[in-house]
Amino acid sequence: MPTIQSLEAIIRDVIAPAAQATDRDAAFPHAALRALGETGLLGLVSATDVGGMGLGLADAAQVVERIAQACPSTAMVVCMHYCATTVIEQSGPEDVRRDIAAGRHLSTLAWSDSGSRSHFWAPTGAVRREGDHGLIDGSKTMVTSAGAADSYVWSTPPLDGNGVSTLWLVDGKADGLSQPKPFDGLGLRGNSSSPLTARDVRVPLSRMLGQDGGGFDTMTGAVLPVFATLVASCSIGMMEAVLTAACTHVAGNRLEHLGSTLADLPTIRAYLARARIQADMARVLRDDTVAALAAQRADAMLRVMQVKAAAAEAALEVTDTAMRVCGGAAFRKDLGVERYFRDARAASVMGPTSDVLFDFIGKAVCGMPVFG
Amino acid sequence: MPTIQSLEAIIRDVIAPAAQATDRDAAFPHAALRALGETGLLGLVSATDVGGMGLGLADAAQVVERIAQACPSTAMVVCMHYCATTVIEQSGPEDVRRDIAAGRHLSTLAWSDSGSRSHFWAPTGAVRREGDHGLIDGSKTMVTSAGAADSYVWSTPPLDGNGVSTLWLVDGKADGLSQPKPFDGLGLRGNSSSPLTARDVRVPLSRMLGQDGGGFDTMTGAVLPVFATLVASCSIGMMEAVLTAACTHVAGNRLEHLGSTLADLPTIRAYLARARIQADMARVLRDDTVAALAAQRADAMLRVMQVKAAAAEAALEVTDTAMRVCGGAAFRKDLGVERYFRDARAASVMGPTSDVLFDFIGKAVCGMPVFG
Amino acid sequence: MPTIQSLEAIIRDVIAPAAQATDRDAAFPHAALRALGETGLLGLVSATDVGGMGLGLADAAQVVERIAQACPSTAMVVCMHYCATTVIEQSGPEDVRRDIAAGRHLSTLAWSDSGSRSHFWAPTGAVRREGDHGLIDGSKTMVTSAGAADSYVWSTPPLDGNGVSTLWLVDGKADGLSQPKPFDGLGLRGNSSSPLTARDVRVPLSRMLGQDGGGFDTMTGAVLPVFATLVASCSIGMMEAVLTAACTHVAGNRLEHLGSTLADLPTIRAYLARARIQADMARVLRDDTVAALAAQRADAMLRVMQVKAAAAEAALEVTDTAMRVCGGAAFRKDLGVERYFRDARAASVMGPTSDVLFDFIGKAVCGMPVFG
Amino acid sequence: MPTIQSLEAIIRDVIAPAAQATDRDAAFPHAALRALGETGLLGLVSATDVGGMGLGLADAAQVVERIAQACPSTAMVVCMHYCATTVIEQSGPEDVRRDIAAGRHLSTLAWSDSGSRSHFWAPTGAVRREGDHGLIDGSKTMVTSAGAADSYVWSTPPLDGNGVSTLWLVDGKADGLSQPKPFDGLGLRGNSSSPLTARDVRVPLSRMLGQDGGGFDTMTGAVLPVFATLVASCSIGMMEAVLTAACTHVAGNRLEHLGSTLADLPTIRAYLARARIQADMARVLRDDTVAALAAQRADAMLRVMQVKAAAAEAALEVTDTAMRVCGGAAFRKDLGVERYFRDARAASVMGPTSDVLFDFIGKAVCGMPVFG
Repeated sequence: MPTIQSLEAIIRDVIAPAAQATDRDAAFPHAALRALGETGLLGLVSATDVGGMGLGLADAAQVVERIAQACPSTAMVVCMHYCATTVIEQSGPEDVRRDIAAGRHLSTLAWSDSGSRSHFWAPTGAVRREGDHGLIDGSKTMVTSAGAADSYVWSTPPLDGNGVSTLWLVDGKADGLSQPKPFDGLGLRGNSSSPLTARDVRVPLSRMLGQDGGGFDTMTGAVLPVFATLVASCSIGMMEAVLTAACTHVAGNRLEHLGSTLADLPTIRAYLARARIQADMARVLRDDTVAALAAQRADAMLRVMQVKAAAAEAALEVTDTAMRVCGGAAFRKDLGVERYFRDARAASVMGPTSDVLFDFIGKAVCGMPVFG
Repeated sequence: MPTIQSLEAIIRDVIAPAAQATDRDAAFPHAALRALGETGLLGLVSATDVGGMGLGLADAAQVVERIAQACPSTAMVVCMHYCATTVIEQSGPEDVRRDIAAGRHLSTLAWSDSGSRSHFWAPTGAVRREGDHGLIDGSKTMVTSAGAADSYVWSTPPLDGNGVSTLWLVDGKADGLSQPKPFDGLGLRGNSSSPLTARDVRVPLSRMLGQDGGGFDTMTGAVLPVFATLVASCSIGMMEAVLTAACTHVAGNRLEHLGSTLADLPTIRAYLARARIQADMARVLRDDTVAALAAQRADAMLRVMQVKAAAAEAALEVTDTAMRVCGGAAFRKDLGVERYFRDARAASVMGPTSDVLFDFIGKAVCGMPVFG
Repeated sequence: MPTIQSLEAIIRDVIAPAAQATDRDAAFPHAALRALGETGLLGLVSATDVGGMGLGLADAAQVVERIAQACPSTAMVVCMHYCATTVIEQSGPEDVRRDIAAGRHLSTLAWSDSGSRSHFWAPTGAVRREGDHGLIDGSKTMVTSAGAADSYVWSTPPLDGNGVSTLWLVDGKADGLSQPKPFDGLGLRGNSSSPLTARDVRVPLSRMLGQDGGGFDTMTGAVLPVFATLVASCSIGMMEAVLTAACTHVAGNRLEHLGSTLADLPTIRAYLARARIQADMARVLRDDTVAALAAQRADAMLRVMQVKAAAAEAALEVTDTAMRVCGGAAFRKDLGVERYFRDARAASVMGPTSDVLFDFIGKAVCGMPVFG
Repeated sequence: MPTIQSLEAIIRDVIAPAAQATDRDAAFPHAALRALGETGLLGLVSATDVGGMGLGLADAAQVVERIAQACPSTAMVVCMHYCATTVIEQSGPEDVRRDIAAGRHLSTLAWSDSGSRSHFWAPTGAVRREGDHGLIDGSKTMVTSAGAADSYVWSTPPLDGNGVSTLWLVDGKADGLSQPKPFDGLGLRGNSSSPLTARDVRVPLSRMLGQDGGGFDTMTGAVLPVFATLVASCSIGMMEAVLTAACTHVAGNRLEHLGSTLADLPTIRAYLARARIQADMARVLRDDTVAALAAQRADAMLRVMQVKAAAAEAALEVTDTAMRVCGGAAFRKDLGVERYFRDARAASVMGPTSDVLFDFIGKAVCGMPVFG
């Protein structure tokens, strides 16, 4: 993938230098996205016939993981863009597909409802038909890139009653969309997460994505694999970065009166070893998930349900370990460890949360219907 | 303790309302300390013959725990003040003792050296005699209330060579003390933690606290029990507050499409139950530590080594659980949960860290010398 | 308590020497119970007016804990005897009370039904009246001292329909009771645990314990506090013993080519320190439970629900740590560690299991009805 | 691999039916090994030119994992045989290689010394030259297949002083070898683990395996990858079997008074989901280790150090979970769960233990020499 070289340059020149301010000021990483768009990386999963790179999940995972090492907020924005693009590529209008491929259109998902929360597949808003438009009402609890995206892949109940949900391509500037609230949260502070409400937002029926009532199938069949793998890749990138920082710190930090480093302490080494194993197991599980999907293996859906939870939980432990072994130094902003520690906590509670996924997996291994 | 009622009023009127800003702006809680001083609570452990309340560790623990529920930063400032007061009451000048008792003098410990870090008992600075003064050089990594305290109980190597360390009462405005750096850290952002360096700081020999070279005994014999118990009480207060917030949130938060609350989920209840047990075990261990010290039980020193580590580690788990069960809501600042989550992490890495204490305890239970 | 000295002698001369064979052969500890009976210790909680020692839960806890250090199987038999005695003392016939006090009658609980399992309060058998007798049918999954006890405190549905359950004093030799099956299980192999079934077992109405339908109140109000505290005391005794064995092993075991012991490894010490803290927290929680019950504190029932789960889970961790730090040596029978490791696992799954208790506690802290 | 079908038949007809008795009676699985030898499976890693199957680590891992599902003791015997064969194939005499390939010779490793324990690479015995023989003295703490193997790959200090250790092919019936002690341990009771001592055991110099003093390189370079991967495969097989048993139990076991199964409890499902993830992460890490070794990847040695520890620790958790979710039923021998629970504990404490491996890994990730 030749474009991967350009990614390294963007990370070095644009993303990494801005990461600390992105976090501190809760600033959306516009410059990073512009740079990623210009080199074609926002069109990574877009088909070549609309000008995209035509690459798949394996490459998308590498890109997201690599960006997450430098700036998890930016990585999550890109992750959600790839998820939305997956839907738009299947059934969206060609002009938007071309814009995405050309790097001039950022999209995202707007799924989690205030009412249903982590049960992402059951929107609680409303939609009604008015001529050749749908009028959407609803309230989303947490939308990544809110206010910054050019479009939202938005879920509603079905227009005509059958099925569980319907997806729409909602213009980012549509009348009736609320202004996003500035996000002042613990972590992933730069990805402009916000609740969004829609009041009589008019969307042409032609911008319905897929069939009316068919949203659930798209969500679980097409998007969930991408979403789960890429959110896991965010977690994996953070683990890689935080372990590098922690190992560097403990190997370099000398106890004056003992003439030794923190790495000379066996307990420190044991913490880091367990963390390294956790991180590597999450990574190989992610790779196996990609392989299972590519080969349409029978266990592919089990892997999809596992991979986000496994990586998110591993990232909680690994960043926690990094905080511990770096001690008081990790409390300060400059070491960078505490930022990964905060950022890493988002993946576990993004819907479907780790606990919801555990329940799905538990049903699967006990032979019960998963979404019952 | 009649003054305890005044504590409730101060918490309600001064400390709790300021807690969010104290954290956000990393602002030292001057107003809270003024109010605590005016009601005599800063003189809680001062002897009655200098005007203090003459109370002991059990009451100090209650005060610190109660304040920590509202503002952990303020609680840590008070904790370190009580620790310093313990030394000053033993061997400090009467005028300072009277000022402390009267609530017009805030003190703190300045122990952890850049060179020795969590091995708090081994200062790496220097002191030399000049007439009836000592001239102190040294560099402390982390001093609570830096720049805000009226005095520091400061450790140096012994003046005349014998023993491990010597303690001094250093005036907060002494020439040669560095300006504290504003603290921009993960948690306990309001307690003005900062490195401090001393360059030729002149201290009258009369302000040596205890015997030259006797610092180690004072540190481990007199201060460590107070420090360990009160830092544990900070952790316990935070656990209490965060569990209250979490239980309230999950019991009140309704899933619209299911007509149920988060508390209806057995997995949520199981998380909270385990957390409640952890919090309560830490509390009863703290109470038993106070009792062991009061009765001079043979296991008192074991309890002292256990209590800070036990409470700090429990607080990591309990605040983590609160973050998990409150999900995305806990990420926002308004629920308060994420603040306790951040603040709670300090106790574990304050010297002696949990891992250092584990090593002490491990030596003790294996019959090895603890500080060997 | 003067009789406590006789306990030490019995442990030294009778219980400890037999412990390994009790486990290996799954042999009921008849000799131990005879010795305990002869010194009056089986009448510890019996009232003085029937000849008992008239002591309470605090003393019973000490006895059970102390025995558990030497032989957990024997301790569990005594634990269940004290639980049954608590009911019999309230409403049982005087002759049985005198026999218990005199040490010639061993009793036990027979509560957990095949159908309801860990929901101990809901028996699924049947009872019908025939003259002045009740005829009991039912099937208990796990009865301690099965076949060895002189009586069972047996739960059935209410005779006359109201209430949740009724308790009966069933003679150990009653016609219609099944023969216990020899117990071949992982741990607590000497306590003769077995399923028992009753087929038309005739019990005089005068041997109904308490009111018809009032079993639930007796179970939760009178027995659960005793049961939970004493099972916890078994766990605490096992932790004490296994930590002593582990510390002795690691402090004494020399690595030849290094000239050092296992205790010289900081990671080993850290494992043991964490285990020691867990054990001590369980112990102080147990002591606080006893104190809460004695003072009828508002949190007494919360403590009761916590104490068994806390101690049982701690014992899982502590015995696991002992296995780990003793390494391959712990695999052999002679060190004794693996026996505590196996025995300790029972408490967690005895009804109400740790998970059931977590659910109760979770309901309590969320303000929900506990037995709803 | 056509022979794999014969493996299934052997497991079904010979290994599985004997597994319970193998454990109960601590009986060496002679019949299983005879059957495996007859179908050529004991020659799986032997070269085709001596009549072996000429297969590699990937296939060996599958065989060991599959056997471990039915009988972990048998799997460990085969594991150690493949390890020993790896050395013998490199530098052993052709007659023994042919016998192994033909399935008439069982071998094993005899490395861990009483003095050095888990530091397997540093034997503490002695060897001296006598004509064209070496005379070996030494004491091995734990040898698998002791007394049952036809040969031992035995480590001694170097004959001529240089290097760390030397390996020898010692005949299983050599004079001077002690009789193995019957193994009465917690788990893996059928693999005839025993200490072995050698007193003046004469071994022809031609049966020195590799160069004098070159044992360390063979141990770490050739055997450790095989050993670590295959012991991990034992753990993986046990996890697979115990999860199958646990899921079957909880999905089938009905609570009568509620009309539901244990699998209907969300907490049970959550336990199983976490366990399933642990088991699957260990498996994909094992597969990645095999791939890393085959491709001679730079991280291959890191994977080797990780895989045994990761799988062994995962197996501790997974079998523990199975015990928990199956509750009292798991305590009985018939469900089989408690056997895997006991057997699974061996891998963690077999040298190099998990903790030793954590230390190696910690050194590696901190840039320190691993075997320093």
